[in-house]
Amino acid sequence: MLFFVNDYCEGAHPAILQKLLETNMEKLSGYGTDKYCDSAKEKIRKACGCPDADVFFLVGGTQTNATIIGSVLNRYEGVLAAQTGHVSCHEAGAIEYTGHKVLTLPAENGKIKAESITDYVETFYGDESHDHMVFPGMVYISHPTEYGTLYTKKELEEISEVCHKYELPLFLDGARLGYGLVSPEADVTLEDIARCTDVFYIGGTKVGALCGEAVVFTKKAPKHFMTMVKQQGALLAKGRLLGIQFDTLFTDDLYTRISKNAIETAMKLKRALQEKGYQLFLDSPTNQQFVVLENKKKEELGKEVQFDFWEKYDEDHTVIRFATSWGTKMEDIDALIELL
Amino acid sequence: MLFFVNDYCEGAHPAILQKLLETNMEKLSGYGTDKYCDSAKEKIRKACGCPDADVFFLVGGTQTNATIIGSVLNRYEGVLAAQTGHVSCHEAGAIEYTGHKVLTLPAENGKIKAESITDYVETFYGDESHDHMVFPGMVYISHPTEYGTLYTKKELEEISEVCHKYELPLFLDGARLGYGLVSPEADVTLEDIARCTDVFYIGGTKVGALCGEAVVFTKKAPKHFMTMVKQQGALLAKGRLLGIQFDTLFTDDLYTRISKNAIETAMKLKRALQEKGYQLFLDSPTNQQFVVLENKKKEELGKEVQFDFWEKYDEDHTVIRFATSWGTKMEDIDALIELL
Amino acid sequence: MLFFVNDYCEGAHPAILQKLLETNMEKLSGYGTDKYCDSAKEKIRKACGCPDADVFFLVGGTQTNATIIGSVLNRYEGVLAAQTGHVSCHEAGAIEYTGHKVLTLPAENGKIKAESITDYVETFYGDESHDHMVFPGMVYISHPTEYGTLYTKKELEEISEVCHKYELPLFLDGARLGYGLVSPEADVTLEDIARCTDVFYIGGTKVGALCGEAVVFTKKAPKHFMTMVKQQGALLAKGRLLGIQFDTLFTDDLYTRISKNAIETAMKLKRALQEKGYQLFLDSPTNQQFVVLENKKKEELGKEVQFDFWEKYDEDHTVIRFATSWGTKMEDIDALIELL
Amino acid sequence: MLFFVNDYCEGAHPAILQKLLETNMEKLSGYGTDKYCDSAKEKIRKACGCPDADVFFLVGGTQTNATIIGSVLNRYEGVLAAQTGHVSCHEAGAIEYTGHKVLTLPAENGKIKAESITDYVETFYGDESHDHMVFPGMVYISHPTEYGTLYTKKELEEISEVCHKYELPLFLDGARLGYGLVSPEADVTLEDIARCTDVFYIGGTKVGALCGEAVVFTKKAPKHFMTMVKQQGALLAKGRLLGIQFDTLFTDDLYTRISKNAIETAMKLKRALQEKGYQLFLDSPTNQQFVVLENKKKEELGKEVQFDFWEKYDEDHTVIRFATSWGTKMEDIDALIELL
Repeated sequence: MLFFVNDYCEGAHPAILQKLLETNMEKLSGYGTDKYCDSAKEKIRKACGCPDADVFFLVGGTQTNATIIGSVLNRYEGVLAAQTGHVSCHEAGAIEYTGHKVLTLPAENGKIKAESITDYVETFYGDESHDHMVFPGMVYISHPTEYGTLYTKKELEEISEVCHKYELPLFLDGARLGYGLVSPEADVTLEDIARCTDVFYIGGTKVGALCGEAVVFTKKAPKHFMTMVKQQGALLAKGRLLGIQFDTLFTDDLYTRISKNAIETAMKLKRALQEKGYQLFLDSPTNQQFVVLENKKKEELGKEVQFDFWEKYDEDHTVIRFATSWGTKMEDIDALIELL
Repeated sequence: MLFFVNDYCEGAHPAILQKLLETNMEKLSGYGTDKYCDSAKEKIRKACGCPDADVFFLVGGTQTNATIIGSVLNRYEGVLAAQTGHVSCHEAGAIEYTGHKVLTLPAENGKIKAESITDYVETFYGDESHDHMVFPGMVYISHPTEYGTLYTKKELEEISEVCHKYELPLFLDGARLGYGLVSPEADVTLEDIARCTDVFYIGGTKVGALCGEAVVFTKKAPKHFMTMVKQQGALLAKGRLLGIQFDTLFTDDLYTRISKNAIETAMKLKRALQEKGYQLFLDSPTNQQFVVLENKKKEELGKEVQFDFWEKYDEDHTVIRFATSWGTKMEDIDALIELL
Repeated sequence: MLFFVNDYCEGAHPAILQKLLETNMEKLSGYGTDKYCDSAKEKIRKACGCPDADVFFLVGGTQTNATIIGSVLNRYEGVLAAQTGHVSCHEAGAIEYTGHKVLTLPAENGKIKAESITDYVETFYGDESHDHMVFPGMVYISHPTEYGTLYTKKELEEISEVCHKYELPLFLDGARLGYGLVSPEADVTLEDIARCTDVFYIGGTKVGALCGEAVVFTKKAPKHFMTMVKQQGALLAKGRLLGIQFDTLFTDDLYTRISKNAIETAMKLKRALQEKGYQLFLDSPTNQQFVVLENKKKEELGKEVQFDFWEKYDEDHTVIRFATSWGTKMEDIDALIELL
Repeated sequence: MLFFVNDYCEGAHPAILQKLLETNMEKLSGYGTDKYCDSAKEKIRKACGCPDADVFFLVGGTQTNATIIGSVLNRYEGVLAAQTGHVSCHEAGAIEYTGHKVLTLPAENGKIKAESITDYVETFYGDESHDHMVFPGMVYISHPTEYGTLYTKKELEEISEVCHKYELPLFLDGARLGYGLVSPEADVTLEDIARCTDVFYIGGTKVGALCGEAVVFTKKAPKHFMTMVKQQGALLAKGRLLGIQFDTLFTDDLYTRISKNAIETAMKLKRALQEKGYQLFLDSPTNQQFVVLENKKKEELGKEVQFDFWEKYDEDHTVIRFATSWGTKMEDIDALIELL
């Protein structure tokens, strides 16, 4: 059975496991105060070109989104996000559980536009009774998006500018950031992201780590952020587990290097799909490829390949998703192409 | 520098790392649905003598406490806990952040008494205006407690009986459970705990794992518990990380075997402290030893040993804590004794 | 200056003030346990044809919505509501503040369709990963809606049936219920509402009272509802203030009788608007009338009449709202018509 | 049956009802923006000697406590309060429902000491792991306390000084403030309170109003406080109901004048109790009097008088409370004394 259901199906990059082994019996202080966390933070600051950034390590994506949003927002504020954004629909209400509303913006292929933010804010403040409503308090985008798409540098800068104008902190969810950075269509660097956002995270879980997301506050973390991490139940006692992983990922550019495999395998698959005349649901330049399949084909293929059901397309067709990762083998792609 | 600050200063037991290595490139489904989670759950059910238990794996202690308490309680209820309980004072308000009050009971050396629960409940329902107050909705105990002490089987059964009488689910925080099970004074088995409680967890973080706590609902988990785990931001994408660890810990009794080292080292230290005439702050039968030191001695010792400040004893004395773990070396204990 | 901004601009119906005066120095027990509350509840049960209903009095609309939704929903659930529903957009995030998500449904003139609920639920449970999402846990409708429109009996029954099928409690926000019951187009009675819903409230604030909403659980209130009312900060010490008002409103059908004035005045205005060739934004059969005005006309009119800005229609036109109430004088309507 | 159960058993002072009648059909804007609210705010600012205060009107006590505490605190903070404080035990967890912990201080007869705050804060910051705990974020006191006792000016100033030193906003719950201001032992004026606190409220519900509490932020209200009031479900549509009541209460010193009746009746009762040899549970200078009764006497008296059960004293005795109010008749006191 071939497996393309998601991009978190393997363990960790071997270099990470190796480092965990090597350091295993060192006695280290807890809660992210150890030397590996320090080293990882320093390397991340450097990679971001952001020497004063505050860096924290959290465990998973939903947790990171809820912790950041719940600590950046004031009580009377909500977060603006694409209606297809992960925080809007796939986090079991984790944001609302912190007491905050997700204010949705129209999205195209997972992306929002700077104009949509402007429209929202102008309409909001133009309404005389807006103090009976939830104030827009920050903007959430994902890059790559839930649809595998990428913001261009121009788009990101425009969003950043609008956010700055309205004093809305900009938060970029980089659960799959590595795959966005090395895509052939990538136009945005880690430094661009650090420059344009107030906070973002570098996804580890989906890019080579066992778990872990590196949160980067490019200016300054909210006061007592660490206490709020604890309050959310997100503070790891053995912070080393995260520090060692990110230290490894940011040594000799490992994070970028391993991300390339996901893209190379995905692009080979994409080309094959196109050549074989399949209808792509959208044009994704990253590790998630969405295809419209006839239901009969879907069933047949399902006997030998595991993929993700995305949504119903029409009575006779279904959108499915193939995901590749840092660990996907090219031979599996070849085998999949064979079956298509 | 000798290190006795806490019991989460090492990585994981080597057998766990070995298993992570071996299984690393297997492609497994996410969120705790993989075969290693299944296997670990089955082994835990067996070890607990509780074939119908619902088992879940969470990442850390505060997270586990908040998730369980926040999902078991009704909205109008709070959790009864020792005033010294971890949920009462050392979790940054994680319980209150879920909207629930911690209702405190008097504690002696970290333990509560069945009578205190009875008194609380009787007084509560005896108050005509109790529906203007927070209803007691469950009982939280820790075993070993935050002071290293243990409940006897009789005490646990009495608490269980009272809880049953008042229909209060009993929750046992077993962050250090292994050390409680193998103490020479241990009178309570895993099966006793499963029989006496409604939910408890088997601590991994402090007993051999990189992270992870195994939650055991002895009767039945709350409906849609997994969704609430997600909502809390506590659902790990790569559930395998937890499944593989607990599968290893519950193979060939590893969990119990490695726990013994913490006790043997702690007991040797305890005897030495007593022989040298030090005042124990309390009589702990587990891996945490609390000693009253003269401040001058404390400072001297602090130059060569890291330990935990516990509390001020009086103007001239301080209570400190030495913690051992599954990974503590006897030679370090010998070196510490030398310095005392 | 004529005043048509809203339907809560006067004090209370004189009969209410009279009754408050008469009973003023009676010493009554607090928190809704007095005889006037009892009497009012009994009269409401009778008017609803629902002898076993649990009735509670709360103070205002947002409070009532938040209290009901927050006590009916399980933690992992959200409330389905029209995207234009009051709970979706005009309550400052009061629902989310209780930890729950508002799940929006498409709306036409403020109304949702039974099919939309079916679609939502079927799509939700059809998604394999729905346990990573917020479960639909109840349905909220308003009647009259925020746009003054009414559900027909058939529409209400269809919604009720779908809710019943999917075990979703149906909650009807009747902040302006009186005006919906006496509209010439009213097709739904109080008894229909009691039969079709699980909980609804009879608006007092906008229909003759100083404040107050009567919550009717047609089957059974959530356990310890009163404690949750207190927890929300919604429990009035002098419950008499609400009991006396609703007792008066439900004596000799006062509630219905005074509602008629709002409809008669609104209908006269509506006819005049139509006769004068104004474009109605939508066809409202109740006390709120929405008109598309040229901006110039709007400004002129604004010098002598206060009305509510609703939304921008296009560059040159604006939608405004005129609201009448139980206390609107026909002479003011005549004066307004004169100015149009 | 004589009624001394509480101080909210009557309606409103007749002057308030009169004013509600007179203004009833005036068309006023909503949500506290009407002229009566403005006038009341101005009079309150003047009475407090605090011309820049931000004044808001809320409906009831628990609501006011939850709204203020939930809007002043940062997310990582809790409120320091007497363990006997209303927010600690009699509000059904309303504070925790906003996500915040109540941090309890030892209390004597309902009062806390400045030293207790110092001790708490010093111990907290002296603990190296305090960022794993709830930060003390504000201080709550009640005046009169739940036991009828009063702070002296010196005590209030000391508390204020400590709060200022540690940058803890000081919040005074004045649900019964009138009775505290006119007690023969009153040493603290409204101006003292305004000078010493950051926020307090002037209780209306228990002092002459149908409902309503006037919140005074002596320096500056939290940003968008009004939106947070709405979010809590505490914003009254007909804000006039509160404005008119407080405007009346602060015209010609009505608030003070009517408070005196409660004190005169209570003091007469207190003297009689003392003369008849009853044991006062504590020495209360305000409208609540606590007496230790033999159980047999309690039962006998209970046949003709309604009073409040306070707590069990010992096997044979019970503490009961008699409460007087602005509306208590001296003849009822005489009748009660007769029965004692």
